Amino acid sequence: GAIIYSMYTDTSIYQAEPPSIAEKDSVTKRENGITEQSPMRLRMEQFIKQHQKEIVAELEKVDGKKFVADSWERAEGGGGISCVLQDGNVFEKAGVNISIVYGRLPKPAIAKMRANHKALDPSVESLEFFASGLSMVLHPKNPNAPTVHLNYRYFETADDQGNTNAWWYGGGCDLTPSYLYDEDAIHFHNTIKQACDKHDRGYYPRFKKWCDEYFNNKHRGETRGVGGIFFDDLDETEKDQEQLFSFVQDCLSAFLPSYIPIINRRKDMPFTEEQKQWQQLRRGRYVEFNLVHDRGTAFGLNTPGSRVESILMSLPLTARWQYMHEPEKGSREERLLDVLKNPKEWV
Amino acid sequence: GAIIYSMYTDTSIYQAEPPSIAEKDSVTKRENGITEQSPMRLRMEQFIKQHQKEIVAELEKVDGKKFVADSWERAEGGGGISCVLQDGNVFEKAGVNISIVYGRLPKPAIAKMRANHKALDPSVESLEFFASGLSMVLHPKNPNAPTVHLNYRYFETADDQGNTNAWWYGGGCDLTPSYLYDEDAIHFHNTIKQACDKHDRGYYPRFKKWCDEYFNNKHRGETRGVGGIFFDDLDETEKDQEQLFSFVQDCLSAFLPSYIPIINRRKDMPFTEEQKQWQQLRRGRYVEFNLVHDRGTAFGLNTPGSRVESILMSLPLTARWQYMHEPEKGSREERLLDVLKNPKEWV
Repeated sequence: GAIIYSMYTDTSIYQAEPPSIAEKDSVTKRENGITEQSPMRLRMEQFIKQHQKEIVAELEKVDGKKFVADSWERAEGGGGISCVLQDGNVFEKAGVNISIVYGRLPKPAIAKMRANHKALDPSVESLEFFASGLSMVLHPKNPNAPTVHLNYRYFETADDQGNTNAWWYGGGCDLTPSYLYDEDAIHFHNTIKQACDKHDRGYYPRFKKWCDEYFNNKHRGETRGVGGIFFDDLDETEKDQEQLFSFVQDCLSAFLPSYIPIINRRKDMPFTEEQKQWQQLRRGRYVEFNLVHDRGTAFGLNTPGSRVESILMSLPLTARWQYMHEPEKGSREERLLDVLKNPKEWV
Repeated sequence: GAIIYSMYTDTSIYQAEPPSIAEKDSVTKRENGITEQSPMRLRMEQFIKQHQKEIVAELEKVDGKKFVADSWERAEGGGGISCVLQDGNVFEKAGVNISIVYGRLPKPAIAKMRANHKALDPSVESLEFFASGLSMVLHPKNPNAPTVHLNYRYFETADDQGNTNAWWYGGGCDLTPSYLYDEDAIHFHNTIKQACDKHDRGYYPRFKKWCDEYFNNKHRGETRGVGGIFFDDLDETEKDQEQLFSFVQDCLSAFLPSYIPIINRRKDMPFTEEQKQWQQLRRGRYVEFNLVHDRGTAFGLNTPGSRVESILMSLPLTARWQYMHEPEKGSREERLLDVLKNPKEWV
């Protein structure tokens, strides 16, 4: 699934002939619209577009300020919409992005992906691919209100007839508080677990663990936050495509109920200057994870022609690094660090 | 020279038998003191310790506040002193560190280093090494005053008799303004160039270019700042050891005269809230370089047991990321970006 990250790039380095699936999809959309019989690519695109609108509308109600939307198109097919709210009443920085990418994968990328997807033919020089996803990061102003991150994505490759070859889903959602309220973590995990349990009782425990392992500032021995779920490379060896699409739909639909109650009860709480500073230090840790460890960010930034502002939208508006800062014994700040060093089971 | 970066780590992963050069050096120091006949390891150690004191003393005069010093020792030999001034009158964050590291290099690290140092024997399982250096980053409060970074280091390996095998010097010094004053960049480059020219008229142009190429946020097509010099792997194929040590001494000695006049003329200048915000955005770019591109930082953070607080001392106290920020046409902010996109010759 690492290659999904080229959704951030204009992938002009892979340009060959015009990708036929992009053309086919454009004709299908124009002539038939999108139905349950349409290719998954178009259904996923429609689904994430709908949810971007819905999430943005709900967040605008919470904040009172409006998001600004930027659209861009890619020459090879596809494009994206970035919705950003900066310096709002409730959110210091909030970004809800979608991207739709049609392109070609070069041989070395195919070889890497074969580790997880045996359907890929390692002998071809390049393959058409499609990637789409919704990414979101919300950094609230109030240090009592947690940052939240979400990303759901669909990837597929086509054979030289333009038929779907390998395909998979990836994504997840995780919460990063500066001050830990157990009830918030429990509510967040519970809501996600319910969405998972509808599909497979094994999903939540497996993807919760994967999340703790992935969103980890290994150099500090701390998880980034109190977790959620994370998964990648879910394909036909896991469940059939309809079942997985339905799972991803339920996960994404669980976002608003998992987070809106939390932000509403925290956004207007009083706080001190010291608490604001602690939040700023925790923001610094967020930056460390995203710039040092996150594979998607690294891949995007190191790819020529990437849209840097969309990739780095995940960074907070402000952050702080203080040499040798240590929270007081028995403080709430210390409690948070304990939990980050020893991830808890919340449900 | 990349392996020098293990100076940040406790390298406990390389532990084998106690390194005999560490023991030898400790006896030499105790019984004979350090003279011009001592091994280069001890002369370099003495030299950087002296300069750390001198630089810290001068910066305290500028700031009016005192640095806090932390010392640490390494079980395998060596140790370090971190001097940090945080939230001073003039400096938002200032760190002047030295480290002395004795350890063993594993086979893969030796193989990598052989590219630049043919004296290394690729057949041995591990090699004793020594690394020492002085690193400094100063982030002033006033947006008119530039950030400055400096690092000079010496590295050597020993054969199994404990005799020096390969050795080299690396380092440099570079300036990162938020608001560009040409006279500052010219003075800074001129002072460094004079130190270089005493040794080799080819050094300054060569190392100035290397600096622009290395301290580069490639994902944005911008250098980190207005440069200075950078070099690595300078060994016997360049000049003899005495000549190179003398070069590095002159470079380090040029620091105070290159920077003190600049900070003194900028530290009390009036500035607006908007200028402070622009500085914060530039701080964000500094963080991006250090966390995404800097080889030393990446190496340190990805090595188990590293001293994270010493590595990340280079980060500013505060930073900011604003989506799609663009300076006004014809503004000083835009002028800075132009120069960062098209590095200038200053002397």
